[in-house]
Amino acid sequence: MTKTPRIDLERLLGRLDAFNHIGALPGGGNCRLALTDEDRAGRDLLVRWMRDLGLIVTVDAIGNIVGVRGGREDLPPVMFGSHIDTVGTGGRYDGLYGVLAGLEACAALNDAGRTTRRPLALVAFTNEEGSRFPPYAMGSLVYVGGLALDDAYAVRGIDGATVGEELRRIGYAGDARPGFLTPHAYLELHIEQGPILEDEGFVIGAVEGITGLSWTEVSITGRSAHAGTTPMHLRRDAAYAAGETAVFVRRLAQSIGGHQKGTVGRIEFYPNLVNVVAERAILTVDLRNTDEKLLQEAERQLAGFLERLAAQEQVAITTRSLARFEPVSFPTDMVSLIEMTARELGLACRRLPSGAGHDAQMMARLCPATMIFVPSIDGLSHNVREYTKPEHLDAGASVLLHAVLRLAE
Amino acid sequence: MTKTPRIDLERLLGRLDAFNHIGALPGGGNCRLALTDEDRAGRDLLVRWMRDLGLIVTVDAIGNIVGVRGGREDLPPVMFGSHIDTVGTGGRYDGLYGVLAGLEACAALNDAGRTTRRPLALVAFTNEEGSRFPPYAMGSLVYVGGLALDDAYAVRGIDGATVGEELRRIGYAGDARPGFLTPHAYLELHIEQGPILEDEGFVIGAVEGITGLSWTEVSITGRSAHAGTTPMHLRRDAAYAAGETAVFVRRLAQSIGGHQKGTVGRIEFYPNLVNVVAERAILTVDLRNTDEKLLQEAERQLAGFLERLAAQEQVAITTRSLARFEPVSFPTDMVSLIEMTARELGLACRRLPSGAGHDAQMMARLCPATMIFVPSIDGLSHNVREYTKPEHLDAGASVLLHAVLRLAE
Repeated sequence: MTKTPRIDLERLLGRLDAFNHIGALPGGGNCRLALTDEDRAGRDLLVRWMRDLGLIVTVDAIGNIVGVRGGREDLPPVMFGSHIDTVGTGGRYDGLYGVLAGLEACAALNDAGRTTRRPLALVAFTNEEGSRFPPYAMGSLVYVGGLALDDAYAVRGIDGATVGEELRRIGYAGDARPGFLTPHAYLELHIEQGPILEDEGFVIGAVEGITGLSWTEVSITGRSAHAGTTPMHLRRDAAYAAGETAVFVRRLAQSIGGHQKGTVGRIEFYPNLVNVVAERAILTVDLRNTDEKLLQEAERQLAGFLERLAAQEQVAITTRSLARFEPVSFPTDMVSLIEMTARELGLACRRLPSGAGHDAQMMARLCPATMIFVPSIDGLSHNVREYTKPEHLDAGASVLLHAVLRLAE
Repeated sequence: MTKTPRIDLERLLGRLDAFNHIGALPGGGNCRLALTDEDRAGRDLLVRWMRDLGLIVTVDAIGNIVGVRGGREDLPPVMFGSHIDTVGTGGRYDGLYGVLAGLEACAALNDAGRTTRRPLALVAFTNEEGSRFPPYAMGSLVYVGGLALDDAYAVRGIDGATVGEELRRIGYAGDARPGFLTPHAYLELHIEQGPILEDEGFVIGAVEGITGLSWTEVSITGRSAHAGTTPMHLRRDAAYAAGETAVFVRRLAQSIGGHQKGTVGRIEFYPNLVNVVAERAILTVDLRNTDEKLLQEAERQLAGFLERLAAQEQVAITTRSLARFEPVSFPTDMVSLIEMTARELGLACRRLPSGAGHDAQMMARLCPATMIFVPSIDGLSHNVREYTKPEHLDAGASVLLHAVLRLAE
């Protein structure tokens, strides 16, 4: 006789607490950069917990950890999970919540004595954050064939070590071929990392897709000059041109509207002195949109602006692409599945795009995929103050459990 | 029988070359930071050259070097000179040219067998640049009583040493009381450090005064947020507010017009990452005007703008004054003297203010003072590429010589 499986919130919170002792930072938050000793300790704990629940653990050659719970039929599995690595000053939920909620879903099914038609596969992908080794979502990208294994192994991190060396050092260069399972579908539960759900009073986000992203480094070269002696009309001021660019990027995002975002987050002036007109400014422009055509339009408008600015201010402007990803749309029936599951559980749900990149973005190349979001207080993420309320952690894990059940039957 | 004294350009250029071997930088330019071994070597050479010309050398307690050439009457002397210290990556002319042209004027008078009614006093002031020890123009400021000797001695430099220790170490803490001579007048020959003379085809600038200066550090605190997930209307973006400020400062200078200048030269963002809306921006605003009332108006407008910006962008903005000097006006008859002298020598001359600070600004508190400017190619200064054409060095030295003669008779 089987009961209805239910998330045990206390058990989930207990596992989150226990796991977050690994790489805990003195003032709160966590540092488990990919393939460090802290990452290894986290992996070891996860593998132990997976085995305790009876999952069959496989590690592939890029270090992705997959725990399979057998199904009644030998069909492609329903895969779900996320990642357990963090940024340098990471929070308690980013990535880890999706993995441990998946583990809790397996535990809930065990408790209820419930088997599923399809096998289930809980995954923790390697190096989602990309903080130590570029690019982000490396494990899932290799898994779907978007990056060759040898190229990934050769990536050198910020500390000089390579991915291949570090995978072998921590004992997580597995034998399985990345992509060894082609899932029936992939689900990823994650904190929103933005303020929309909290701001509008929703508990669940059904994620329609991943926003496309265009990162550009803009280098402006003017002429260094004395701030006291150089008439305004004779200046070729790289700092002023940088200021104009920051203002333009805001207005560009506002004028395109909708899901368009524009951010100048990084800047350097040279020589960066109070009384010297800057010779050089280097800044970054982060443009995002869920619509590829609009993202291209934003890129075009930025390029046009920079061309006019260079002429007007008599400065030289060069640009370099730092990253470019097209938007990903998740299948409508996957998004509807999340909405329907949330509705049945009585949870207020809205559709929204993800502004951040995730492993689901890569997995969408291999199988139908979508994500479930829960609110992030103040939208904080990649921040030691990252926080999600326990009842929202419970709600997200419940939606994951029941959406997995629907997919697996 | 006396001849008309004439500047010997070759001798002046030879001394400039020889002196600039001291503290020469590998790629050109010079580093003789105040009270370093290089500064001492320069001082030793200058004292030797002064004595070779028969000047009576006195060093005062702040290390100012004064070489007196006796007059026919025991009257207050005509003083002229500048400084021999440099910034960290200084040029060949800033300061040194004024001192060595003064030395050449003395040599020319000697060659011509010419005595003057008033004594002449050639001075090299200590630490005009302020690059190692704040404030700038320290030697002349102490000389005119604007900074107490003990306070100057206690100033700690960027390398941890104090002015008092370093003056004694290099043997230039003299016995004379700063201000021991009250000059009849003070003249300072200097490169313009700006582009106006070159741009308009003038050879000599008759300096009407020193621009007033207001340096403000602006700290903007917003809220760090994810660049991909945070809607534009929920942002409190310190970087955007900094960009608006840079644009405002340019427009402020243009709207006030005249000699108003405005520069944002230094900036820092935190955390300064491509995909994070900046939590904090710190920037500097350098405002200058020759008119104190207009400078105050510029300060008021900046303050009003920052208040509106803080409200509009929901950021906190605080400001801190880094420096504030009122404008200095040189006496009209001193400025006319330079114009008249240039005209007699057939040199195209215009009046202009100095946008940079100089020892003459301090000496103006003690006696009638003014300055003579010669063109700086491309306006470059505080830069190893600083350059002034030999014929302009000749012209400036000639104007100095003949203006000194007028004042001394």
